[in-house]
Amino acid sequence: IRSLVQYDLAHYMQPGKAQSLAAANGPDLSSGGNFRRAWFGVQGKVFGDWSYYLNYDFGGGGGTETPGHVQQLWVQYDGLGPIALRIGAFTPSNGIEDATSSGDTIFLERNAVAEMARNIAGGDGRNTISATYSADKLFAQITYTGNKIQDSGAFDEQQAVTGRLAGLPFSNDSTKLLLSAAGSYVFKVADAAAGQGAARTITLNAPPEITVDNTGTKFVTSGSLNAERVWQYGLEAAAEWQSLYTQAGYFRYGVDLRANAGAYGFGGWYGQASYLLTGESRPYSAATASFGNPKPRIPFSLSGGGWGAWEVAARYSDLDLNDHAGMKGAALPTGGLRGGEQKAWTLGVNWYPNQALKFEAQYQNVGIDRLGTIPAAGTKPAVNNAFVGQSLNIIALRSQIAF
Amino acid sequence: IRSLVQYDLAHYMQPGKAQSLAAANGPDLSSGGNFRRAWFGVQGKVFGDWSYYLNYDFGGGGGTETPGHVQQLWVQYDGLGPIALRIGAFTPSNGIEDATSSGDTIFLERNAVAEMARNIAGGDGRNTISATYSADKLFAQITYTGNKIQDSGAFDEQQAVTGRLAGLPFSNDSTKLLLSAAGSYVFKVADAAAGQGAARTITLNAPPEITVDNTGTKFVTSGSLNAERVWQYGLEAAAEWQSLYTQAGYFRYGVDLRANAGAYGFGGWYGQASYLLTGESRPYSAATASFGNPKPRIPFSLSGGGWGAWEVAARYSDLDLNDHAGMKGAALPTGGLRGGEQKAWTLGVNWYPNQALKFEAQYQNVGIDRLGTIPAAGTKPAVNNAFVGQSLNIIALRSQIAF
Amino acid sequence: IRSLVQYDLAHYMQPGKAQSLAAANGPDLSSGGNFRRAWFGVQGKVFGDWSYYLNYDFGGGGGTETPGHVQQLWVQYDGLGPIALRIGAFTPSNGIEDATSSGDTIFLERNAVAEMARNIAGGDGRNTISATYSADKLFAQITYTGNKIQDSGAFDEQQAVTGRLAGLPFSNDSTKLLLSAAGSYVFKVADAAAGQGAARTITLNAPPEITVDNTGTKFVTSGSLNAERVWQYGLEAAAEWQSLYTQAGYFRYGVDLRANAGAYGFGGWYGQASYLLTGESRPYSAATASFGNPKPRIPFSLSGGGWGAWEVAARYSDLDLNDHAGMKGAALPTGGLRGGEQKAWTLGVNWYPNQALKFEAQYQNVGIDRLGTIPAAGTKPAVNNAFVGQSLNIIALRSQIAF
Repeated sequence: IRSLVQYDLAHYMQPGKAQSLAAANGPDLSSGGNFRRAWFGVQGKVFGDWSYYLNYDFGGGGGTETPGHVQQLWVQYDGLGPIALRIGAFTPSNGIEDATSSGDTIFLERNAVAEMARNIAGGDGRNTISATYSADKLFAQITYTGNKIQDSGAFDEQQAVTGRLAGLPFSNDSTKLLLSAAGSYVFKVADAAAGQGAARTITLNAPPEITVDNTGTKFVTSGSLNAERVWQYGLEAAAEWQSLYTQAGYFRYGVDLRANAGAYGFGGWYGQASYLLTGESRPYSAATASFGNPKPRIPFSLSGGGWGAWEVAARYSDLDLNDHAGMKGAALPTGGLRGGEQKAWTLGVNWYPNQALKFEAQYQNVGIDRLGTIPAAGTKPAVNNAFVGQSLNIIALRSQIAF
Repeated sequence: IRSLVQYDLAHYMQPGKAQSLAAANGPDLSSGGNFRRAWFGVQGKVFGDWSYYLNYDFGGGGGTETPGHVQQLWVQYDGLGPIALRIGAFTPSNGIEDATSSGDTIFLERNAVAEMARNIAGGDGRNTISATYSADKLFAQITYTGNKIQDSGAFDEQQAVTGRLAGLPFSNDSTKLLLSAAGSYVFKVADAAAGQGAARTITLNAPPEITVDNTGTKFVTSGSLNAERVWQYGLEAAAEWQSLYTQAGYFRYGVDLRANAGAYGFGGWYGQASYLLTGESRPYSAATASFGNPKPRIPFSLSGGGWGAWEVAARYSDLDLNDHAGMKGAALPTGGLRGGEQKAWTLGVNWYPNQALKFEAQYQNVGIDRLGTIPAAGTKPAVNNAFVGQSLNIIALRSQIAF
Repeated sequence: IRSLVQYDLAHYMQPGKAQSLAAANGPDLSSGGNFRRAWFGVQGKVFGDWSYYLNYDFGGGGGTETPGHVQQLWVQYDGLGPIALRIGAFTPSNGIEDATSSGDTIFLERNAVAEMARNIAGGDGRNTISATYSADKLFAQITYTGNKIQDSGAFDEQQAVTGRLAGLPFSNDSTKLLLSAAGSYVFKVADAAAGQGAARTITLNAPPEITVDNTGTKFVTSGSLNAERVWQYGLEAAAEWQSLYTQAGYFRYGVDLRANAGAYGFGGWYGQASYLLTGESRPYSAATASFGNPKPRIPFSLSGGGWGAWEVAARYSDLDLNDHAGMKGAALPTGGLRGGEQKAWTLGVNWYPNQALKFEAQYQNVGIDRLGTIPAAGTKPAVNNAFVGQSLNIIALRSQIAF
């Protein structure tokens, strides 16, 4: 039996002039508390060569808790040495940030750049068939993916291939360098309706690196696009020296519209670092080619014990969904899209009283630079030169238990 | 692993003239069966000083079973002796009836007076941070609470403080006296919509002490009020002498309307008694300052055993949501509200074959005395002098398993 | 702790002319994957004479996965020898195919004839009180049933009795013959709305023996009928000789309309056979009077082991919901109903690598012979002589884990 519960409290501090924005642009995000994840699952082996993982989630990232649903459910054949074959719903590997498990991320949410990338053909509860090679210093995975199992109303599912190659070119007791390349190629976008001529729509976007708000606002978004193909790649590196951990990534995304209506390209990057004040290191996991939570050297105890592990961290991310956005006050150039650019600073302090508990406090500044409106599906956006961005601050606290 | 399952069957017997009532006043409640609770959870300790409880509910009180959702999820720090600090979703203590756990109540449902009180700033799955002091003869708890985690569409959550003080001034082997005072103060009602000028609405009401009906009818209700502040207090006492158990309480509620539109005050009281024919007593729990199910002296068994424990019980409750309701046939006085008064008699027989099982049969007579209609949010109700009450009988059977 | 997870992938191959059919007649079924069942439950005994089973389902048969809900929850008294009394939600026994547990069926879905029969007053999650007699060679059950616990919006639930009698007149080590008779009688159809004059509607239909499609299309259906009474009976036999298993059944269904508007009668039959290439037999379960999955003699293992168990199977089913349907091009005869006839061939190959895993591949041809449209509730259908059937092929793969 395994469980991961994350309870988030957040307070959004928005400028007064945000109130004049349209509903889609986040005039008033809602502060409060919610269960980000409430996982309850069973993992095990059957008859040696087969393993399974059945995991259910009773939490939800929309400010309101959602009913219990499947988070991942799969069966894996382990009888081929370092290669494992898996079928079911799970999260295919799509980079260092993606492969860091949801209870082990340094901040409350993954950075928006990696978050958008992983949800194109991966993310939680994706229908998949995959083959994985994992050894001490090399990780490779190729996965054929369909829709997420919670997606409703899809007529003939999305079909895509996603893969990752990662290696540890240098590692010793105090130092580790991890390089990772990952990408996705959606060769058939899901039908939005029944019948031959149905639109095949996809929307690329990401929440503002915190999901307590229940309006579901995405400050930057491609809008719904009627797409023929979608692709994405991400190059990431992580370096660890004793208690210092650093990680960075560069991502590109592309959408080819249907009916020869052109193509859009987007990009983004992030960098983050953390330092463990109490001397621990983030341990490397060869099974996922990523780093996890530190194990406190001395668990917290008022009666003569230690203070657990304490970590400070900082991150910057820049997700740019503009493509030929043009100038403010001018018409949108032909073939352009005003999806907006989101730049976010995050500072965090994490406390690990023992191996099961984790408390995270973080402060964020999110700046949105965006013109015009969200375009309708597959059409070029209407001319709208208003500036629809804002700059807001968010404070948040997560209480987490995992076992 | 812990579980509590309650399966209720009920038959509503309404007078023929009830059929002419409006839908909100319960012209035809639906008989049938439903799972009132289907809890499945895990409780445990981590590293000595910390404890947790993760509990999910697959049942539902609306005649229709609801999808699995969080019932309570919390982490608690126990390292400060008799004081415990807790964060997450749970049920803050709000009196003797409220603190009696859902599997240990003498009747199928808590009395309407305490039920309405506990749901103002407490009840199942409330977002909370709390401090609890519990010793053998004294219990105190203060809790800061937000919304319930299942509440949807709240923009900036409710904020409230709720607390309870309870003590056992007299106790020996055969006799116990428990006194309890509890209250809630909602200093910020939840926003009903985004934006600065949003209404802050709250509705005070309670179901008719049985929830098998799936129309969700509340016979007495304040209607939706646009409120600045809401408060409530309850004074209760319980006395036990050998197999005889008695309990009573007096409650007051207040709502201050916004924009200086006045205030409403409501009240209610209840009394109940039970007698264990087979000689057991209801055991006292110092951790919750309430009494629980008796443990049968000899479990039921056809092959030479005993009959388990048998209990008979009676209750009367009176919940009055009228405030200057005026006379029938006359206009509603200025500042008045016709929420109605509900008086309910309940007779019950409970059978405990062993420590895990419980079967409860009960007969209820519910009388509703009510004029006029439910007022719109924050307005004074329109003049409507029709009598919208009724008197109905309900028989019900609960089958319960708990471990 | 018990679990059953079934992950289905299916591809629907429909003729081009199906696209001109109305939405209700399945112009474009959706291919893809979904979790048919994701059960997670606890089964046990309390104090010797009592047993319970609490089971939750996180999967769903509609192409989209549904939130976790109750699959069955019951308490049973076993203190009366071969007779067991049970209360709660479960699946009453309604024949050999029905009693074969969902993880033990030879094909992905039960045949449409038995599927329609079991859902009239039985099926998963039915509110019931039952008495069961089970001995080595004789099984009898009588059950009083209400609605399914997931049914919403029922005002005063359905009330019905369902029962089954089954026996093993001949059995030795290599050969078994099982005979079974079962039936249901619905004496009160559920109210569709509140009030005295509410319609009491019921719809008889079944999916096309595969449920990956998320449009919920039922090719053949009685339409919604305002019914006074509904009945059904099924006669089935199963014979096993070493590795060869055969089973067949004949079913009749009847609906008496309200207000003396006449009656409809429907029928169907099926036959199926399977052969275990690796020499195992399907074991007989006296507790359910049905046969289960074979236990592989040598579990599959690349390192020197065997190949598990391999099974080939074939089935034909014919479900006829026409009643005086008349000729194509002619008006519908008085008192007739054009519900359609579905004839389905299925061929399957099943692989059981070990006792916990099962992979099933199947090919189906479904032919629909149907005139006219679905009639409105309780009315005779309008004249519509168009042929609304089609013939389609479906390939499907199930991956299953059960423990």
